[in-house]
Formats: sequence, structure tokens, C-alpha cells
Amino acid sequence: MSKSIVLFSGGLDSTTVLYWALSTFGEVKALTFDYGQRHRLEVSMAQKIAQKIKIPHKILKLDLGQIGGSSLTDTNYPLPEFKTLEDIGTEPPSTYVPFRNGIMLAMAAAWAETQGIWNIICGFNVIDSPHYPDTRQEFVEAMAKAINAGTKASLAQAKFHLLSPFINLRKSEIIKKGLSLGADYSYSLSCYRGQEIPCEKCSSCLLRQKAWQEVGLRDPLLVRLKKEGKL
Amino acid sequence: MSKSIVLFSGGLDSTTVLYWALSTFGEVKALTFDYGQRHRLEVSMAQKIAQKIKIPHKILKLDLGQIGGSSLTDTNYPLPEFKTLEDIGTEPPSTYVPFRNGIMLAMAAAWAETQGIWNIICGFNVIDSPHYPDTRQEFVEAMAKAINAGTKASLAQAKFHLLSPFINLRKSEIIKKGLSLGADYSYSLSCYRGQEIPCEKCSSCLLRQKAWQEVGLRDPLLVRLKKEGKL
Repeated sequence: MSKSIVLFSGGLDSTTVLYWALSTFGEVKALTFDYGQRHRLEVSMAQKIAQKIKIPHKILKLDLGQIGGSSLTDTNYPLPEFKTLEDIGTEPPSTYVPFRNGIMLAMAAAWAETQGIWNIICGFNVIDSPHYPDTRQEFVEAMAKAINAGTKASLAQAKFHLLSPFINLRKSEIIKKGLSLGADYSYSLSCYRGQEIPCEKCSSCLLRQKAWQEVGLRDPLLVRLKKEGKL
Repeated sequence: MSKSIVLFSGGLDSTTVLYWALSTFGEVKALTFDYGQRHRLEVSMAQKIAQKIKIPHKILKLDLGQIGGSSLTDTNYPLPEFKTLEDIGTEPPSTYVPFRNGIMLAMAAAWAETQGIWNIICGFNVIDSPHYPDTRQEFVEAMAKAINAGTKASLAQAKFHLLSPFINLRKSEIIKKGLSLGADYSYSLSCYRGQEIPCEKCSSCLLRQKAWQEVGLRDPLLVRLKKEGKL
């Protein structure tokens, strides 16, 4: 269990899981997808975070705009805005990207296989984001089986492990975990609108706001932006 | 069970399964991946076949060269040549593309979801290609579970079906099936080298040669090439 790859979007959850992996595995590589997301700025910020903590970082390009069906990859869809988290409802919102995590985990497994790495770490959590089917434990377990059946791992002793250590934590609990591990969130972006300054209207901004309120601290991203005169 | 998407590379198996789908489903769409394969010519030939039989055809771009680890996507690896099929051995050859079918099925499911189509048809067969882990029944079943758990299908009544009707057929039996359905194989390519004229040295050419020998007919591709003065 010494080498690992972390699915790293640069958001709060994956930044935390990156620090968790560093405290757990001997070797950690970060993997970010430049998938045609409208908030593509997260890719360069993820790169900045990886450089700051000096871990190898791979960026894979993937054009999910060809598939469409989501307001995150197709700007013809308006990005939904909410006043409160309760307004989001119970159905997957238009920011659901069809089977995004399935595609990313499949590509992560392929890349991991070329590296001889069998641990893939995800920051998925369902407590605060129950609307996205591709973050649930049932999905992660099924995907692990598919990867183990469809790669050379099926023929050798090495077996893939997909780990989602935060799947049942609230976002505020994830942040506390990260702070205890020394995580720096000042470059971590969440806003779907794709600006460094949070729009505070998309569901991702609202979730982030609520989490920092629960933690009882000011969001380090806002602290940095203020310091830099951007807020 | 009326609408379907066929994973269509343009090879013998997927050409046959396309005809099978046309005989089985009310609506058929073909899906081809331009994934950085060295035999990329198969994409334009697949397009030609789809046009000839007048079915909607989607081509998704995907750069598996970024992941590497295969002589099909990385020309730094030499393409293995064999004298006989027995020389191939029992291990996955360098033409294995890490988790290729997992990645393709994940993207196919995403696209299918945007179309409201729940049947994905694959021409996988393991009898003649036991070296590729991502064509086996165990993999297909696990992948179907992952797709059903990780898409909106998990929340609705619609459920994805991954169908591999030829998984236990020999390639010659697949061809016979196709011929009985009126399949035209004259534009179907198999050669890994990526030329229209088969190299007759790669494993894919050897398998195709053997299959047509078993069927007892001359390969329609060669018949066409001769007619066009290319052979």
C-alpha cells in the first residue's frame, strides 16, 4: 500500500484527500482532468497547489463537451443559481456531468496501470452532495470491480483499491481533517462559474460557504484574495 | 428495448454487431472512438460503413496517447509481428491498451445517458482474443453495475444494458452470423498497422486471416482491394 494516485480537482475535498494521501502513502501522484469544464481555472490552481507541496502532477485532457448534457461543459445551458442550499432540490442538477467520475476513474486506472500503482484515492463525499450518483459508495465499489476485471490486474496479484476515505463525512468535517493535516486551502477553488472570486450563487459556492461557517473560520481563499487586493 | 448504441470500431466483430443491432433494435446509433490509435484509418472506414448503411454515427475524440503503455497508441513501442497465432503467447501483448474498453464504455454510457438510450452493444469476443482482459464477461457485467450505480439511471427506472452477444463465439462464427444478416465487410479494417492493405504480420491480421479461412471464403476487403487495383 505504498504508492497512490489522487484524483485532484483542486477543490476542498480533493485538496484534503491529497494531504490525507501524503500522510498515508509513501508515494503520491496527483491527477487532474482538464475536461472542458467551464471552471477550468481549477486546473491551473490545482497545478499551483501541487507545485507548492512538491508532488508529481499529471494533467489529462478529455473533452466532455463532445458529450454535453451538463451546464458545466456546455455553456448553452445556464448555470443554476440558488439563494439557499435548500433550493437545490433532490434531483441531479444540470451541473451533473454524465458519468464524469466513471470516465475519470477509468482513465485514472489506465494511467495507474502504466505506472504500476494500485491505489486510487478520491475525495468523494455524499453527505453534502447527495444529488450526484457518481460519488456514492455503491458506485465506487462497482467501479473497483470493473477496473480489477478489465485490466492486467485481473491476471496478476496486484489489485486496484479505490479509496474514498471521506465518503461519509460532512464537508466541514473534511475541512477540519485537512486543517489537522496542515492543508493550505488558499488556492483551492470551488466556484462553478470559473472565476477566482466566488460567485456565491452556484451550489458549489453555497456548500463551501456553509462548510466554513460550520468550521467557524474564514475561508482561506477569501483571506488570500483580500490580502492580494482582489476582494 | 428499442433504442441502442453500438460501439463500432469498424472491425469484423463490431461491424457484425452493428448488423445484429439493426436486426434487433428499432433504433441504432454507431459510436466510434478516435482515440489516438495508430490504425486511425479505421475511423474513416467506420464512417464510410455507417454512411453506406445509413445509420447515425458519432465520433468521440479521446487522446489515449497521453496515457501510453501500448504499442497501439505510442509509436515508440514497436508493433509486434508474428509468424503464426501460436507465437502470440498467453500474456496481454503490447497491443493491449490500458483499460481501453472501460474508458470507452464509460464515455459511451455518458453519451447514451444524454440521448435517453439504455442499450449499449459491444462486439467483444474472448474466444479468439483471450489476452485482452477488457473484453471478458466478468468485466462487462461489472462495468454495467458501475454504470447503473453512477448515472442518473440509478435514480430512475431506466437501466443500462451492456450487451455482448458474440462474447462466446469464434471469429469465424461471428462472420457467418454477419453474412446471414447481409453484412458488408469490404470496408471493415482490422490491421493494427493502419494501412488499408493488411500487413498480414500483426495479431489482428493473423486472426482475421484464420477466421476467413475457417469460413471458407475470400476476405471481402481483399476482394475489393484487388478490384480497385490496390492489391
